[in-house]
Amino acid sequence: MSRPDTTHEFFLLTSLSIREKIEMNNNRFHFPSIKIGIVGGGQLGKMMVHKARKMGFYVTVLDPTPDCPAAQAGAEQIVGSFYDEDRLRELVEHSDVTTYDIEHTDTKVLQGLAEEGNKIYPSPVLLETIQDKLRQKDMLNKGSIPTARHEKVDRFDTSCLGKFGFPVVQKAQKGGYDGRGVVVIKNGDNLESIIRSESFIEEFIDFEKELAIMVARGIDGEIRCYPVTEMFFDERANICDMVVAPARIEKEIEEEARRVAIRCVEVLDGVGIFGIEMFLTRDKRVLVNEIAPRPHNSGHYTIEACLTCQFEQHIRAITGLPLGSTRLLCPAVMVNLLGEEGHHGHPAIEGLAKALSVEGLSFYFYGKKTTLPFKKMGHITILDENLGRAIEKAKEVKDFLRVKAEVNA
Amino acid sequence: MSRPDTTHEFFLLTSLSIREKIEMNNNRFHFPSIKIGIVGGGQLGKMMVHKARKMGFYVTVLDPTPDCPAAQAGAEQIVGSFYDEDRLRELVEHSDVTTYDIEHTDTKVLQGLAEEGNKIYPSPVLLETIQDKLRQKDMLNKGSIPTARHEKVDRFDTSCLGKFGFPVVQKAQKGGYDGRGVVVIKNGDNLESIIRSESFIEEFIDFEKELAIMVARGIDGEIRCYPVTEMFFDERANICDMVVAPARIEKEIEEEARRVAIRCVEVLDGVGIFGIEMFLTRDKRVLVNEIAPRPHNSGHYTIEACLTCQFEQHIRAITGLPLGSTRLLCPAVMVNLLGEEGHHGHPAIEGLAKALSVEGLSFYFYGKKTTLPFKKMGHITILDENLGRAIEKAKEVKDFLRVKAEVNA
Repeated sequence: MSRPDTTHEFFLLTSLSIREKIEMNNNRFHFPSIKIGIVGGGQLGKMMVHKARKMGFYVTVLDPTPDCPAAQAGAEQIVGSFYDEDRLRELVEHSDVTTYDIEHTDTKVLQGLAEEGNKIYPSPVLLETIQDKLRQKDMLNKGSIPTARHEKVDRFDTSCLGKFGFPVVQKAQKGGYDGRGVVVIKNGDNLESIIRSESFIEEFIDFEKELAIMVARGIDGEIRCYPVTEMFFDERANICDMVVAPARIEKEIEEEARRVAIRCVEVLDGVGIFGIEMFLTRDKRVLVNEIAPRPHNSGHYTIEACLTCQFEQHIRAITGLPLGSTRLLCPAVMVNLLGEEGHHGHPAIEGLAKALSVEGLSFYFYGKKTTLPFKKMGHITILDENLGRAIEKAKEVKDFLRVKAEVNA
Repeated sequence: MSRPDTTHEFFLLTSLSIREKIEMNNNRFHFPSIKIGIVGGGQLGKMMVHKARKMGFYVTVLDPTPDCPAAQAGAEQIVGSFYDEDRLRELVEHSDVTTYDIEHTDTKVLQGLAEEGNKIYPSPVLLETIQDKLRQKDMLNKGSIPTARHEKVDRFDTSCLGKFGFPVVQKAQKGGYDGRGVVVIKNGDNLESIIRSESFIEEFIDFEKELAIMVARGIDGEIRCYPVTEMFFDERANICDMVVAPARIEKEIEEEARRVAIRCVEVLDGVGIFGIEMFLTRDKRVLVNEIAPRPHNSGHYTIEACLTCQFEQHIRAITGLPLGSTRLLCPAVMVNLLGEEGHHGHPAIEGLAKALSVEGLSFYFYGKKTTLPFKKMGHITILDENLGRAIEKAKEVKDFLRVKAEVNA
């Protein structure tokens, strides 16, 4: 009988999926049979850790902040930077399979570790493509996936920036997230606020809705697609603040959105779960905006509302286990709890008791030690048979449930 | 502005519910605002810890086994016995509110700590009543709650044991759980297997079904009742192995069962969640069998199937927060993964990949280091619109998903 350790060696030395190995191993799992590594221990890591722990798996996260959210959920933590080669090696070599809760990490180092035979999903090569939003778009277009027209910025003048006319969207190729690294240039007269780093312009899409879909793909290519959702953004910070599931769109558009989303993950040869953000244009075209190679804010509602949530689905996918059903049990609305403007410091939340008295509300607080304006501090999900009523409840709660800082009070 | 510490002092020194305090404190929560202590860190503790962590609360558990299941979910652990006065004091004084995942602890010590002003829910006095199954039954009867006829055993002879005729059930007053401390005496000829400790006999109920209900009660008396479920037992060990929700019973019986269950928790003046086990007799009477003063095996299905699960409900109740909706989203069947007979040692699970391919199945493995025959090692929950199909799936999985020990292979 093989001991856990030899199981792990066996695991590391072959290219078979864990599922195949289990079957070869008489379909046996030894506990903790699977050691998962996660680059990043924020809220996405925390929710992944819970689902992994639920199944008896062992998790290590790499994160620079001691006692990060994922560590609070029972992961072992390596304290270090996402770009620290030694720490990345420590994480990967300590784990049977490694994944991410953030795409800002050293893909070169991870690619080297993958070439040594370590399992890393999604692949560092895919991550590198995603990291550069321009390369990402070009790859999608090569796969004949529709996106907004775009062009690399080689000169910071109107002749280049104005190519698609104004207003136009300028995006940094790298390093952007949660609205950072994106500006809208209203006209050519004032170029003060433009991005000076490597960037591209994108035609300004006067969209009808912003849609998002989670798609999971297994090591063996098995695909599961979640319902299409509508994303709403806080315009002050251009950050997602509400997600409505399912999206209120025509059946044909839903099917088109699913088809395109699945195609995206196939084009990228992705393994794991992916968040596909899209525009629905006023002339009813579906254009892919960008892709998150990990669990995504637009999929938090799946924890309560779907048979298998995005976090467990990701764990299943990267460990080669069968994917779960993505069926929606009940309509849901998710609202992000963003740090209040003008508030910095130890968080204090207002209105919690009142919020918890709302029928069908589930509350998440990530355990971050400091709140900052628009920082994602937690979220709520409201389930209601009646989607319209769920949206009303969500908007109500949004008005009184606030994350402030003690010292600002 | 009060700091977290003063919030805690404030909390400890008044008799107001946390909810009232939050409101007095401008409805403000400071994170981690609530420190929860749990006596016992098994699977119930683990699932409570997850829900507490989800809301940003801090948890400490007292358990003799290092790296107990609850510690794996992100609780701080005090390693020690449930009967160690110093460790119990350490736990309670380190926490704003203390609760249990097991009823076998020193209620005298806890009562002393409660009298010093520490919050402990349910109250140690209630726990003491529950610990003695005879006192528990007598208290229920005083509250005019129907139970099987019973009588204290004062002589180990047929004149006493045979009072209700044979077969008869003999139960130890204290220390029994998961089928331990209960024997069925078939006739008066063979009394070898009878219980020799403090015990009572109970008339043998030839029941139609065994039912269970979870009932939550807040500090302010608010009550929420979950659906009635059917419990099935593995006869080899008389331990619960399957729970079906909702119970397949007539509406009137369901209403009667709910009414009786709620009455039980009121009679006990309970705070927290309670599992009420009942018999449905062939002549359609509902008799209370026994009460668990904590989350209960019959309520595991609520994690996936109800708007608010039993574990979050318990956390809400003991912290004085509003209780959540208990609405059933989808029929569900829960199956316990019990350690295989004849297997002792480091656990290995067979059939996991196959099980995860079953539509609507959720898998839990508690992270216990050793498997023993009939030990609760994990569970699965299957959701299906069609309850009959859910039961079929559950029985199928029960046949191939097995927890063995490596060395026995």
